[in-house]
Amino acid sequence: MEEQQISEPEPLINLIKALKRLPGIGIRSARRIAYHLMQYDLQGANSLSIALSEATGSLQHCISCNSFSETDLCVTCSSSFRDKSLLCIVETPSDLINLEASHGYKGLYYVLMGRISPLDGIGPKELNFHKISERINKGGIEEVIIATGFTAEGETTAQFLIDMLVPFGIKTSRLARGVPAGSELEYIDAGTIAWALMDRKSNL
Amino acid sequence: MEEQQISEPEPLINLIKALKRLPGIGIRSARRIAYHLMQYDLQGANSLSIALSEATGSLQHCISCNSFSETDLCVTCSSSFRDKSLLCIVETPSDLINLEASHGYKGLYYVLMGRISPLDGIGPKELNFHKISERINKGGIEEVIIATGFTAEGETTAQFLIDMLVPFGIKTSRLARGVPAGSELEYIDAGTIAWALMDRKSNL
Repeated sequence: MEEQQISEPEPLINLIKALKRLPGIGIRSARRIAYHLMQYDLQGANSLSIALSEATGSLQHCISCNSFSETDLCVTCSSSFRDKSLLCIVETPSDLINLEASHGYKGLYYVLMGRISPLDGIGPKELNFHKISERINKGGIEEVIIATGFTAEGETTAQFLIDMLVPFGIKTSRLARGVPAGSELEYIDAGTIAWALMDRKSNL
Repeated sequence: MEEQQISEPEPLINLIKALKRLPGIGIRSARRIAYHLMQYDLQGANSLSIALSEATGSLQHCISCNSFSETDLCVTCSSSFRDKSLLCIVETPSDLINLEASHGYKGLYYVLMGRISPLDGIGPKELNFHKISERINKGGIEEVIIATGFTAEGETTAQFLIDMLVPFGIKTSRLARGVPAGSELEYIDAGTIAWALMDRKSNL
């Protein structure tokens, strides 16, 4: 059978397999990336290898906000500049980064690291909702801003959070729904227009 | 300035940077992959790290065909089942894999690891054309099949190769151009149809 063998060396096959495992990378992209690294960017391959092993070795979840951190308490949570009376609940660290980039929020965060998705077996228990109630019980939080996505799963997650928060008698809010900044009404979907009408602001 | 800082830990930033360096991966994909690995697939991150360092450490170019190999002479070149009178010149190891997958070729290969591209400063010298002539000088090769792509750069590369091979008085051929297997003429571009007409086969 030797003459039928496709002649890719073992380490290259392993590299292509490991790359294919990344989200959004298929077999063709994986092969292209592997060949590119081996032919043109050995240094890039080395720095990726080191970055991966350093990240897996040093990153943990912040004990307060659950986002990724090198230390027990992350930079945001330990900052003296943050307003500790506000708690914003987001789905992912990317959402947190986006909220930070808006420069519109100076409170603390809790990162769910997911959203409720019954089909995938992810409920309030898997998302560690109890950590949020523990944090509210510690006191000091005056308002919880629920900043989950406006998708079906994000809405479900928000509703579960609201149900959990009601007994605390704490102020609870959600991000405003409406027409995105800089957009023309002509190109906005009907659902967004409907929400923007319903939530319209008076007393301008 | 501490309150303006975006709170991504250093190892995560390094990982995102290293991923962004991969071809076809932008900043958003890089961040998504990094978060995915850290949250859901630490094992995948580890195996990618190991695969990268093993590949950069163990892969070299085959002294005969120039493709990637763990040993001085690759599996294909050292196989006793290959027809050593045929030499097929391809641009990349992916092209070699595709030719092998066709099961239509049993000769040897030479992988250019690129193609002539004057704008990028890649000429015959950068592609080590002299290695091909050295190999022909060693004797035994009866036909050189030029299997570069049918793109502008692939055609240029083929022409340079033909010019270099003429003095050797060796038989030189190119892959047939024409209508792809399994396709309907309706959907084939005019250029391909023109070539298929010009290179039409008689004596069927």
